[in-house]
Amino acid sequence: MPLMIYIVGLGVILSLIFAYANFKKVSRMSAGTVEMRDIAKAIQEGASAFLSREFAIDIPILIVIAILFGVFFTPWAGLALLLGAAMSSLAGLCGMKAAVIANVRVTNAAKEGVERKEPTALGQALQVAFQGGSVMGLSVGGFALLGMLVIYLLVGFWQAFANPENLVTVTNWLGIRFTVFTQTLTCYSLGCSTVALFNRLGGGIYTKGADMGADLVGKSELNIPEDDPRNPAVIADCVGDNVGDVAGNGSDLLESTIGSIAAATVLPTALYMTLINSNRPISSELLTRLMQFPITVVGLGLIACIIGIAYVIYKKPTNRPSRELNLSLWSSASIIAVGSLVLSYIFFNGHDTVPAQFRFGFISPWLSALVGIIAGIVLGQLAERYTSERYKETQNIAELAKKGTALLITGGMSSGWRSCLPACLVLGGAVILASYFSGGYGSPMAAVGMLSFVAATVTVDTYGPISDNAGGIAEMAHLNHHVREITDSLDSQGNTTAAIGKGYAIGSGVLAALALMMSFTESIGSAGNSMTITNFILIGGAFMGVGLMHWLSGQMLLAVTRNADQMVEEVRRQFREIPGLMEGTAKPDYAHCVRICTNSALGEMVRPCLVALIAPILGGFVFGPLFVGGLLLGSILDSVAMATSTANSGGAWDNAKKLIESKEDEMIKEFGEKRYQEIHAAAVNGDTVGDGFKDVVGPNQDIMIKLMSTMALIWAPVFAAVNLFDIVMK
Amino acid sequence: MPLMIYIVGLGVILSLIFAYANFKKVSRMSAGTVEMRDIAKAIQEGASAFLSREFAIDIPILIVIAILFGVFFTPWAGLALLLGAAMSSLAGLCGMKAAVIANVRVTNAAKEGVERKEPTALGQALQVAFQGGSVMGLSVGGFALLGMLVIYLLVGFWQAFANPENLVTVTNWLGIRFTVFTQTLTCYSLGCSTVALFNRLGGGIYTKGADMGADLVGKSELNIPEDDPRNPAVIADCVGDNVGDVAGNGSDLLESTIGSIAAATVLPTALYMTLINSNRPISSELLTRLMQFPITVVGLGLIACIIGIAYVIYKKPTNRPSRELNLSLWSSASIIAVGSLVLSYIFFNGHDTVPAQFRFGFISPWLSALVGIIAGIVLGQLAERYTSERYKETQNIAELAKKGTALLITGGMSSGWRSCLPACLVLGGAVILASYFSGGYGSPMAAVGMLSFVAATVTVDTYGPISDNAGGIAEMAHLNHHVREITDSLDSQGNTTAAIGKGYAIGSGVLAALALMMSFTESIGSAGNSMTITNFILIGGAFMGVGLMHWLSGQMLLAVTRNADQMVEEVRRQFREIPGLMEGTAKPDYAHCVRICTNSALGEMVRPCLVALIAPILGGFVFGPLFVGGLLLGSILDSVAMATSTANSGGAWDNAKKLIESKEDEMIKEFGEKRYQEIHAAAVNGDTVGDGFKDVVGPNQDIMIKLMSTMALIWAPVFAAVNLFDIVMK
Repeated sequence: MPLMIYIVGLGVILSLIFAYANFKKVSRMSAGTVEMRDIAKAIQEGASAFLSREFAIDIPILIVIAILFGVFFTPWAGLALLLGAAMSSLAGLCGMKAAVIANVRVTNAAKEGVERKEPTALGQALQVAFQGGSVMGLSVGGFALLGMLVIYLLVGFWQAFANPENLVTVTNWLGIRFTVFTQTLTCYSLGCSTVALFNRLGGGIYTKGADMGADLVGKSELNIPEDDPRNPAVIADCVGDNVGDVAGNGSDLLESTIGSIAAATVLPTALYMTLINSNRPISSELLTRLMQFPITVVGLGLIACIIGIAYVIYKKPTNRPSRELNLSLWSSASIIAVGSLVLSYIFFNGHDTVPAQFRFGFISPWLSALVGIIAGIVLGQLAERYTSERYKETQNIAELAKKGTALLITGGMSSGWRSCLPACLVLGGAVILASYFSGGYGSPMAAVGMLSFVAATVTVDTYGPISDNAGGIAEMAHLNHHVREITDSLDSQGNTTAAIGKGYAIGSGVLAALALMMSFTESIGSAGNSMTITNFILIGGAFMGVGLMHWLSGQMLLAVTRNADQMVEEVRRQFREIPGLMEGTAKPDYAHCVRICTNSALGEMVRPCLVALIAPILGGFVFGPLFVGGLLLGSILDSVAMATSTANSGGAWDNAKKLIESKEDEMIKEFGEKRYQEIHAAAVNGDTVGDGFKDVVGPNQDIMIKLMSTMALIWAPVFAAVNLFDIVMK
Repeated sequence: MPLMIYIVGLGVILSLIFAYANFKKVSRMSAGTVEMRDIAKAIQEGASAFLSREFAIDIPILIVIAILFGVFFTPWAGLALLLGAAMSSLAGLCGMKAAVIANVRVTNAAKEGVERKEPTALGQALQVAFQGGSVMGLSVGGFALLGMLVIYLLVGFWQAFANPENLVTVTNWLGIRFTVFTQTLTCYSLGCSTVALFNRLGGGIYTKGADMGADLVGKSELNIPEDDPRNPAVIADCVGDNVGDVAGNGSDLLESTIGSIAAATVLPTALYMTLINSNRPISSELLTRLMQFPITVVGLGLIACIIGIAYVIYKKPTNRPSRELNLSLWSSASIIAVGSLVLSYIFFNGHDTVPAQFRFGFISPWLSALVGIIAGIVLGQLAERYTSERYKETQNIAELAKKGTALLITGGMSSGWRSCLPACLVLGGAVILASYFSGGYGSPMAAVGMLSFVAATVTVDTYGPISDNAGGIAEMAHLNHHVREITDSLDSQGNTTAAIGKGYAIGSGVLAALALMMSFTESIGSAGNSMTITNFILIGGAFMGVGLMHWLSGQMLLAVTRNADQMVEEVRRQFREIPGLMEGTAKPDYAHCVRICTNSALGEMVRPCLVALIAPILGGFVFGPLFVGGLLLGSILDSVAMATSTANSGGAWDNAKKLIESKEDEMIKEFGEKRYQEIHAAAVNGDTVGDGFKDVVGPNQDIMIKLMSTMALIWAPVFAAVNLFDIVMK
C-alpha cells in the first residue's frame, strides 16, 4: 500500500468525523427565543426548498451526461461523473444544513453574552460561527478526497498501478484510443464542476436578485434600514446567503481542488503517453510517483487544516476576530509548507526518480507548490488593497459618490480594470516561476499548493455568511442593538476574508484550467505542436473563447438583473397592497419572495450551463483540436480579467457604501440631511451594480473555464480523430 | 514604373485637390448672424488652442523617439517616423479646420432653408455637413498614401525593387540584422499610430470630460436642456466634438489604414526572409507583387471614394439623410469590389505569380479582401442591432430605467458583454476564411479590404460631429426651433453611422494587429516555432497583455472621470458664484472650462501613451520574443472584447436615454412629472457612464494594440538577439 493511501485515508476519515462532531455540537446549542426560532425555521425551509428543487433539475441532466459518457467511453467514466456530482452535492448539503442551524445560534450566543455582560461575548459568538463554518470546510476537503480515493483504489490500481502499460492501450468500441484512469479522473472532476456551476450560478442569481431587490426598494426608495423585517425580500436575502455563499462557494472550491489535483495527475500521464515511444520515456515508477504526489499533498493539507481548525475552536475565546481567523489559516499553511517539503523528499529523492524537467532536484515540486501558496496570499492581499475602505482606491470611489452615481460607477469600473494588471503580473509570474522550477508539472502543482488548505479557507469563507445571517436574525427578532453590534463586527471581518478568498479562487482556478489545457494539448499528440499563435484556426478559436466568456458573463448579469427586476416589482407590490406593512402592523409575504427567487434562479441557470458544457465539444467536432486549444486559451485569458475586475469593482463599491454609512453623522453635519441622502443613494446604486458583479459574474468565471477545459480534455481523443474541418481540408 | 505608382499617385493628387476645393467652397458660404459667428469663433479658437498645445507635447516626444530610432536603426527609420507623424497631424489639422468652419454654415444653411421655407432644407444642410466632412475623409486618404508613396519611392525602390536581395542583408552598427524597407515602413506606421493615440486619447478625454460634466450638472442637477447657453461647459463640449470625434477619429482611421497596408506588405517580406534559404523560396518578382498589391488596392479605393463623395455633393439634395450617406458608402464599396478583382487579375494571374498559399489562384487575395469588406459591414450591422433604439436590446435597457439606475447599468453592461459573442464570431470567422483563401496574406488583406474605402467612412463619421455642433450653435444662438429640428435629424443619422464606423474601426484594427503579430512571429525566425500555447513564457506574456490592456482601459476611464469631476466642480462653482447665470442675465465663463479640459486632457494622456510604447520593448528585453508574442496575443484578445463591449454598452445607454426623451409626453401622462424626472435621471446616468466607455475606452483599444504590435515588430530583431531571460537560462 503506498503512503498516499494512508495519508489521504487518514485525512478523509478524520475530517468527516470532525465535521460530524462539530455539526452535532452546534445543533445542541440553544436557538434562543420563539421569534428567533421562527425566523431561523423560515430560512431553513427556504434553503432546503431551493436545494431540493435544484437537485430535481441537476439530476436528470447529470444522468443523461453520465449515460452518454458511459456508452461512449467506459462505464467507469459515467459512474465517476455521478460520483463527483454526489460528493459535491453532499458537501454542499451538509455544509448548508450546518450553516442554517448555526446562524441563529450565533445570534443567541451574542444575545446571551450581552445579557450576562461577558467580556468575551464577541469571541464566543465567533467560535459558534467558526464551528458552524467548519462543517462546510471539512466536508469539502473530506468528500472531495473520498471520491478521488475511491477512483484511485478501484480504477487506478487496476489500471495504472498494477500495469502502467494499460494507460496507453485502451481502445473503445469506436476504435478511439484513450486512457481509462485519467478519463475516469477527469470525469470525476467534471461531475464536481457541473454541480459547482449549478450551485454557484443558481445560488448567485438567487442571492443577488434578492439582495438587489431588497436594497433597491428598501434602501433607495423607502429609506428603511437593511434587514428590516418589514421588507418582504429580507428572508429571501438570508436564504440566498446560504444557497449562494455557503453551498455555492463550497462546491466551487471543492471543484477547484479536484480540478487541480486532476490536472496535476493527468499531465504526467499525457506526457508519459507522448514520450513512451520516444528515446526519453518516463519510467512507470516515476509516473506513479508524479501521479500520487498531488493528492498526497492535499491529503496532508486536510490533516493540517483539521489541526488549525480544532485549535481555534477549542482555545480560549478572545475578542479579536481577525486574529482568530488568520490563526487558523496561518497555522494550517505553515504545517503544509513544512510537511510537503518532507513529502517532496520522500517522493522524489534519488537519481532515478527526478524527472528532467525538475530544475532543482526533488525540491522542485515543493518550490512550485510554494509559488502557488505565495501567489495565493499575494492575490488575496491585492484584492484587499483594491476593495478595503482602509486603502486609497475605495476611499477615492467613496469620494466620487459626492459627484453622483455616474462618476461613482466609472470610478469603480476604472479601479476594477486597473486591478487586473497586478493580478495578471502575479499569475503570469507564478506560471513562469512554477514552470521554471518543474516544467509542465509546475503550474498544476502551484494550484495544488494554493488549494492544499482548502478546508481552512472554506471554513473562514462560510463563517462570513453565517455571521451575516446572524445579524439579519438579530434585526428581525428585534434584539438589543448590542447584539447587532457583535454580529456586525463578525460580519465586517468576514467581508475582508471573502475578498481574500476570491483572490484565491480565481488564482487557483486559472492555474488549474491552464494545466488542464496543457494536458489537452499533450493528449492530442503531434497536433499539439501546431498550436502556435500564428495558426489561424487557433486564433479563430481564441476569438470564440473571448466572445463566449463575455456572452456567458453577460447572460449571468442579465439573469441577476431580471431576478432583481421581478423582486423590485414584488416588493413594491406588497408595500402598495398590504395595508399597515410600512407602519409595521402587518406582516409581509416572505414566502412569495422566496418562491420568485427560486423559480427565477433555476430558470436562468440552465442555459449558460449547457452552453459552457457543449461549446468545447461542438467547436471540436466542427473545427478540430486546434480550434479548441484556442478556445480554451481565449476563455482562460478573458476570465482572468473578468473575474478580477468584477470582484474588485464590486467589493470596492460595497465598501465605499459602508464607508459613507460609517461617516453618516459627520456628513449630515457638513452637507445637510438631503445632500447626504443623495450621496448615500449614489453609493447604494454602486453597491447594487457591484452585487451582480462580485457575487455572480466574478466567481463563476473560474468554474466555467475549468468545466470547459475538463470537457475538452475528455473529448480530445474523439474530435482529434474525427472533425469536420479535417474532412473539408482533405 | 509599376502600375502601383500611377494608381496611388492619381488617388493622392485627386483627393488632396478635391479636399482643398471642398474646403474653399464651404468657407465661402455665409456663417449667419453675428451671434452665430461669435459662437463659432469661440469653438474655432478652443479647438486650435487644444491642437497647438497638443503638438507642443507630441513633437518633443516624437523627436526623441525619432533620434533614438535613427541612431539605433537607420536615419530612414527616424525620418519615416516623423513623416508618419506629420501626415497624421496634417490630416487631423486640415479636417478639423474644415469641420469648425462647416458647423456654423450647416446651422446657417438650415436657418436660411427654414426662413425661405424650402422643401429640401434638410438636404441642403446635409450637403454642407457632408462637404465639410469630406475634407477630413479625403485628407485621411490622401495624406496617408502620400507619405507611404514617398517611402516606397525613396526607400522601397532603392531597397526592394532595385535589388530585392538587399532585404535580407542589412546589418546595423550593433551587428543586428534587419530589413531597411520594412523597418522604414513600420516606423512610418508607428509615427501615425503615436499621433493617432495622442489625438484620440487626448481628444477623447477632452470631449467626454466636457460632455459628462455639462450633463451631470446641467441635466441631472439643474434640469436645463442640452446645449443650453447658460451652461458654462457647453462651448468646451462643442470644442471636444471637434478635437475628439473629428481630429481623433480621422487620425485613428488613417493609422488603421497605414497599419493594415504595412502589415500586408511586411508579412510577405518576413516570409521571404524565412524561406530564402529553404527549398521553397518565393521569387523576388512575386515578393514585389505581394508587396505592391495592398497599397494599390487602397489607392484604387481612394479614387472610388472620390467618385462616391462627389456624387453625393453634386447631386440634387433630398430630405433623406440616411439614403445620401449610405449612397456614398455603397457606391464607393461597389467600385472597389469590382476594381480590386481586376487588380487581382493583373497582379497574380499566371502560374509563376501565384503563391502556394493562394487556394483559388489569382482570385484568392480578392476573396480575402471581400471577406474583410463583408465582415466590416456585418460588424457595423451588429453594432446597430445592439445600440439602435429600433431594436430590442436598447428598448429593454430603456425599460430598466424605470427600476432605477442600478439595473439600467447592469442591463447595459450585460448587453455590451453579450454583444461580444457575435462580434467575435464574425472576426474569428473572417480570420479563418481569409486565411483559408490566402494563407498568412489573408488576414491583412481582409483588413486592407475593410479600409479601402476609408475616405468615405471618415467623411460620414465626420459629418456626425459637424451636425452635432451645428445643433449646439442653433441652440446657443437662440434660433427658431425648426432649425434645431433639422440639425437634430442630421445628428441622429450621424449616431447610427458612428456606431457602424466603430464596428469598422475595431474590426480592421484587430485584423491589422493580428497581421503585425504574425509578421513579428515570422521576423524572429526559428524561435517563432516555439510560440505554442503551452510555452510558459508565452502564457506569462499573454497574462501580462490582458492585465496591461485592462490597466490602460482603467487609466483612460480614470482620466475621463477626473476631468469630468473637475468640470462638475467648475460648472457648479460658476452657477454658485456668477449672479444671474441661471436666470440668463449673465454670461458664463466658457473659456475657463475650455482651459480646464485642455490641461486635464493633455496631462492625463501622456502616461498611458508612454506605457503602451514602452511595454513591448521592456517585455522583450527582459523575457525575450516569446513573451512579447504572448503579450501581443493577450492584448489583441482583450481589446476585442473591451472595444466591442464598451462601444455597444455606451451606444445603447445613449440611445436608451434618447428613447426615453422621445416619449417624454406619454410617460409624464402615465407616471406623472416627478416619476418621469427620476426615470430620466437614471437614463442620464447611464448615458454619462457610457460616454467614457464608448468614446474614450473603446476607440483607443485598436490604436493601442496596433501601436504595441508595431513597436514589437520594429524591435524584434534586437531583443531576439539580446534579452535577459536567454542570458539567465544559459
